[in-house]
Amino acid sequence: MWKDELKRLLGPRGCLERPEDLRLYEYDGGVDKARPDIVVFPRNTAEVSAIVKLANRHGVPIVGRGAGTGLSGGAIPHHGGIMVAFSRMNRILEIDPLNERAVVEPGVVNLDLSVAADPLGYFYAPDPSSQRACTIGGNVAENAGGPHTLAYGVTTNHVLGLEVVLPDGSIVNTGAPWPDSPGYDLTGLLTGSEGTMALVTKITVRLVRKPEAVKTILAIYDSVDDCAATVSEITARAITPAAIEMLDGILLQMVEEAVHAGYPLDSAGVLLIELEGLSEAVEQQAEQVRQACLHCRAREFRVAKSEAERQLLWKGRKTAFGAIGRVSPFFYVHDGVVPRTSIAPTLRRIGDISSGCGLTIGNIFHAGDGNMHPIILFDARKPGDLEKAQKAGFDILEYCIQVGGSITGEHGIGMEKIHLMDKQFTVESLDMMRKIRNLFDPAQLFNPGKLLPAGRGCAEIRQPPLVPGSTIY
Amino acid sequence: MWKDELKRLLGPRGCLERPEDLRLYEYDGGVDKARPDIVVFPRNTAEVSAIVKLANRHGVPIVGRGAGTGLSGGAIPHHGGIMVAFSRMNRILEIDPLNERAVVEPGVVNLDLSVAADPLGYFYAPDPSSQRACTIGGNVAENAGGPHTLAYGVTTNHVLGLEVVLPDGSIVNTGAPWPDSPGYDLTGLLTGSEGTMALVTKITVRLVRKPEAVKTILAIYDSVDDCAATVSEITARAITPAAIEMLDGILLQMVEEAVHAGYPLDSAGVLLIELEGLSEAVEQQAEQVRQACLHCRAREFRVAKSEAERQLLWKGRKTAFGAIGRVSPFFYVHDGVVPRTSIAPTLRRIGDISSGCGLTIGNIFHAGDGNMHPIILFDARKPGDLEKAQKAGFDILEYCIQVGGSITGEHGIGMEKIHLMDKQFTVESLDMMRKIRNLFDPAQLFNPGKLLPAGRGCAEIRQPPLVPGSTIY
Repeated sequence: MWKDELKRLLGPRGCLERPEDLRLYEYDGGVDKARPDIVVFPRNTAEVSAIVKLANRHGVPIVGRGAGTGLSGGAIPHHGGIMVAFSRMNRILEIDPLNERAVVEPGVVNLDLSVAADPLGYFYAPDPSSQRACTIGGNVAENAGGPHTLAYGVTTNHVLGLEVVLPDGSIVNTGAPWPDSPGYDLTGLLTGSEGTMALVTKITVRLVRKPEAVKTILAIYDSVDDCAATVSEITARAITPAAIEMLDGILLQMVEEAVHAGYPLDSAGVLLIELEGLSEAVEQQAEQVRQACLHCRAREFRVAKSEAERQLLWKGRKTAFGAIGRVSPFFYVHDGVVPRTSIAPTLRRIGDISSGCGLTIGNIFHAGDGNMHPIILFDARKPGDLEKAQKAGFDILEYCIQVGGSITGEHGIGMEKIHLMDKQFTVESLDMMRKIRNLFDPAQLFNPGKLLPAGRGCAEIRQPPLVPGSTIY
Repeated sequence: MWKDELKRLLGPRGCLERPEDLRLYEYDGGVDKARPDIVVFPRNTAEVSAIVKLANRHGVPIVGRGAGTGLSGGAIPHHGGIMVAFSRMNRILEIDPLNERAVVEPGVVNLDLSVAADPLGYFYAPDPSSQRACTIGGNVAENAGGPHTLAYGVTTNHVLGLEVVLPDGSIVNTGAPWPDSPGYDLTGLLTGSEGTMALVTKITVRLVRKPEAVKTILAIYDSVDDCAATVSEITARAITPAAIEMLDGILLQMVEEAVHAGYPLDSAGVLLIELEGLSEAVEQQAEQVRQACLHCRAREFRVAKSEAERQLLWKGRKTAFGAIGRVSPFFYVHDGVVPRTSIAPTLRRIGDISSGCGLTIGNIFHAGDGNMHPIILFDARKPGDLEKAQKAGFDILEYCIQVGGSITGEHGIGMEKIHLMDKQFTVESLDMMRKIRNLFDPAQLFNPGKLLPAGRGCAEIRQPPLVPGSTIY
């Protein structure tokens, strides 16, 4: 029996298979649920390779898991099988400030790397909202972003090389410790591939210098259109802040009531703008940003006067999801991208969709990137509400595609958006992706049912975005 | 006859096949040579697709060509066949400053895009030394870099999406007009693939804001070690200049005698350092750089006082290869990468190799990236000299790999370095690359004999880096 083989391989403390243990591994930060047959905790690459070979021999599906904070179901073992939890492979192997890089195991928590690099004056730039919990391995799988994506780019821009275990169990190194490795860019191909082609066992990342100065600004508006227009206005003035986050009036009230960050309760929307760099440059940019905000009729422009005030403004943004939970027991966070010049019309369209279906939709998102996160409030206990929420999400993403945008900015496709891939990509593009996947994983045992929809004629295995009856956050 | 079919397809003015015409297309900026059977000039994607389908039907090899400035033989039609010259697909299709992107055809000259974006306050960041001639399509094929790679990254960091024609003639769009497209990163996979998997017919690129201020500095040293140590010292002081170029004493004399850029004739080496940003920040950084240079015993630190002085300093760097041609009729430019902390030992090793083989080797390179360009002077008319130069180049690159570096930073593999790929990569990595290539191009008609060495046991089709009797620059 393959489970016994696994237990022999990893020892009794290297596996979990009691139902009460497995329950803890059946969900992630999203809405889908599925239970693995066994969870294993390898300590090194050789063990991962041995696990994969065993799975391969027995035709058992295999899915990796970091901290389980993903929002699109990437780590859900949709077809059961073996879950490879990377919590024991959590060492920072090397920090090399002179060459501005670090080597980590996949289970290293995102923030821990920045904390370790801090005394040397460096940090790891990609900062998902879940950065206190999420792992760098999970970030690589989903190509995670964060508020500071605007200035620094997403995970793939920070990964220089990988050590991976392929579906046949072989161990391959890709990339190099510098940004432009020769040959085909296997590192880029595997980053964001959601565990469908490889399990990552070692990651070489770029480290970024800490800025000398940081300034955080809150700009307050009476009109959502003016608030959105400011984002393009800042770009037009040739300023790239480190972050431009937007919260609309609906979200502001919910967040302020929970966090008391000093957000206004009566405004239509605010921008949270962060500037970074040398002290003088930050001062100069803050003045330019002030002019852009006032030009777009901001009614108030507040600069955080202390680190405590700064942290409080960010606390409001980073803990928003908890705040929403106080108001609505069920909500559905979406993730779409539009050109930043289309933010205002997209918000209007979201408003129309909200009125049309009778569900409240708030917005809190990475405005600088055009990365929208509409949050649809509903009540799963009310018949038809879940379907309305699903339909509203679908309509919003369809609009994103229509204005030249995308169905995900940073949460990944996972199970959640797999049925939208054929709206985003042509048959030819999807076909090319499928061929690449089959090349790596002909037996389709690596994270089956994720990222790529089944080919035409196989609609029956497409996954719905919300499984009725699942736990909803 | 397939050539007649091609002529019917493209018209008499769309093809060249007289030997005197074909001779102009048998070389690039490197040392290899091979003549195509016919050169075709498509005007649009549909024509490229038709050409590829025809080539496929008749089993004829096909290679794309931009401006032919490549240094590793990427555009050399090693197996003859059809050369697709993109000089008629040279339109800038869109410049969108608010969303900071442009859409271009592959034949657009690199610098032309920056010139077009200039009035809007933007530029296209990758700047190969050949940027006045080289095309963006060629840059994508080779994943080209340039002096400003240090601050901005190489071509792949600036390509958001591609329209490509695959080896079966199908037209596929990859990526999206924003940095994080869902699904597998086909854009990244194809960028730098040297025409072995696709012909690029349209490119969406990032545009970058022009900096407010630019300052160019010349730091002069009596010791190569001190000059090299400054590069790490600048990093250690948390400064990232836009460029750090190094020229050693041998190169300095050659360049100064040709260009009169004001370079010292008696120094061991100089750094050409460029700072960019807001005016105040640049002033502040210039002072920090001055301290770093003096700390490493720079004997002089000159800041260009005018745009004319700045341009003169850069002219010395950018026209260096012409200057070398005045001194030596034959030279071989290499391209290797080392960690920037290993620059000094690598230069010492290059010195030892030079003494050992009795050939002069000068160095002019992107020091900030550790991207070395040793230039080996030889005389092809002297028996044994060419072989010595080849051996010296091989020894240098072997050392680069040994200290944790790479066989190419920005010139590509092409034909020149194909025999070194198995020193850079493991059998497993190369095998994975070969499988991907075969997936895209099972008939191996797209740029055959490039980038990937034939598998084990096929040594006979490996290409030498220099074909004796070829024109050497």
